Amino acid sequence: MNYPNGIKKPQNIDISTKPVDYKNRGMTLEGEINQSNEYYIEIGKAFIYKKPTPIKIVNVDFPSKNKAVIKEAYFSTPSTTDYNGLYKGKYIDFEAKETKSKTAFALTNIHPHQIKHLENIDNNGGIAFIIVRFTTLNETYLITAERFLNYINNNDKKSVPLEYFKTDAYLIKDGYRPRIDYLKVVDILIGGKI
Amino acid sequence: MNYPNGIKKPQNIDISTKPVDYKNRGMTLEGEINQSNEYYIEIGKAFIYKKPTPIKIVNVDFPSKNKAVIKEAYFSTPSTTDYNGLYKGKYIDFEAKETKSKTAFALTNIHPHQIKHLENIDNNGGIAFIIVRFTTLNETYLITAERFLNYINNNDKKSVPLEYFKTDAYLIKDGYRPRIDYLKVVDILIGGKI
Repeated sequence: MNYPNGIKKPQNIDISTKPVDYKNRGMTLEGEINQSNEYYIEIGKAFIYKKPTPIKIVNVDFPSKNKAVIKEAYFSTPSTTDYNGLYKGKYIDFEAKETKSKTAFALTNIHPHQIKHLENIDNNGGIAFIIVRFTTLNETYLITAERFLNYINNNDKKSVPLEYFKTDAYLIKDGYRPRIDYLKVVDILIGGKI
Repeated sequence: MNYPNGIKKPQNIDISTKPVDYKNRGMTLEGEINQSNEYYIEIGKAFIYKKPTPIKIVNVDFPSKNKAVIKEAYFSTPSTTDYNGLYKGKYIDFEAKETKSKTAFALTNIHPHQIKHLENIDNNGGIAFIIVRFTTLNETYLITAERFLNYINNNDKKSVPLEYFKTDAYLIKDGYRPRIDYLKVVDILIGGKI
């Protein structure tokens, strides 16, 4: 099991020697986070779940007494983030997004009320962040809501450049189990806040 | 605004003089909790949301480029509870259920993995509970996961009698804004745990 497993600040990575992780190939960020969360639950480390996709149901059929088939429904805008839960007695809340861009994370990727929600959580004692994967570069960052908001409130409101992630976010390296060990960063955040 | 608004231990209620709350008539427990949560969010007191209903999508139509219509989907079993969020820096997690019974809350109302989930939360520093409304009696109780588990692990595993709610749970009285001020009980729980 000699898979790389750990987190380093961006300045510590040597891209040229980074091994290709064949096991994770083709898996989406969401899939990897879900697997990681299942692993955390399995070992009793954290209880973090993805929320179901919000759907507006318009029409339901009942072909038999105990069976219901949704015949018409629409995807609706989420009011909050995709993931939340409990770790070390703390409330954890985050959104996860992929981008194909090699230079910046466009704010069109995230709903304004999701940003507002992360701000609320950050201001009220929760641990709030966004996990962003630059898929073309195969780099995954955890940026705190505080650092994210700091950028968009003081700079361009359309996108956050990769350079800002390199200086103000945490790089999460690929792992085996869990696939993406973001709680290592959360440990740093909890440590830093105490 | 002379609506009753507060929480008393069951022994303090005088059923005979309890006013009928016409404003809340016909509203489900879920509806009342959702309205209460909206109120808490509005005043910045707590950030607790109902999770979307989990649905397994089988078939989606795209009648035009930016439109998606779900044509076939099924309700799936939830992995966790319906509600969770953040209050006073604490992770809050609960399930809400109505029963028509006048004597007991049957465990068929709640999935075994939801009970396991509440146990996990309770054991890991979260605030975990169930809100149960006996609709015929118009009595709504908040029972902690710890007291609930204490009963089902030591007694009948099929139902929890109303009498146990009367002695081991908190009665939540109807209110106006919020409709159901369950955070008053959570304050007691947080106080008691410190």
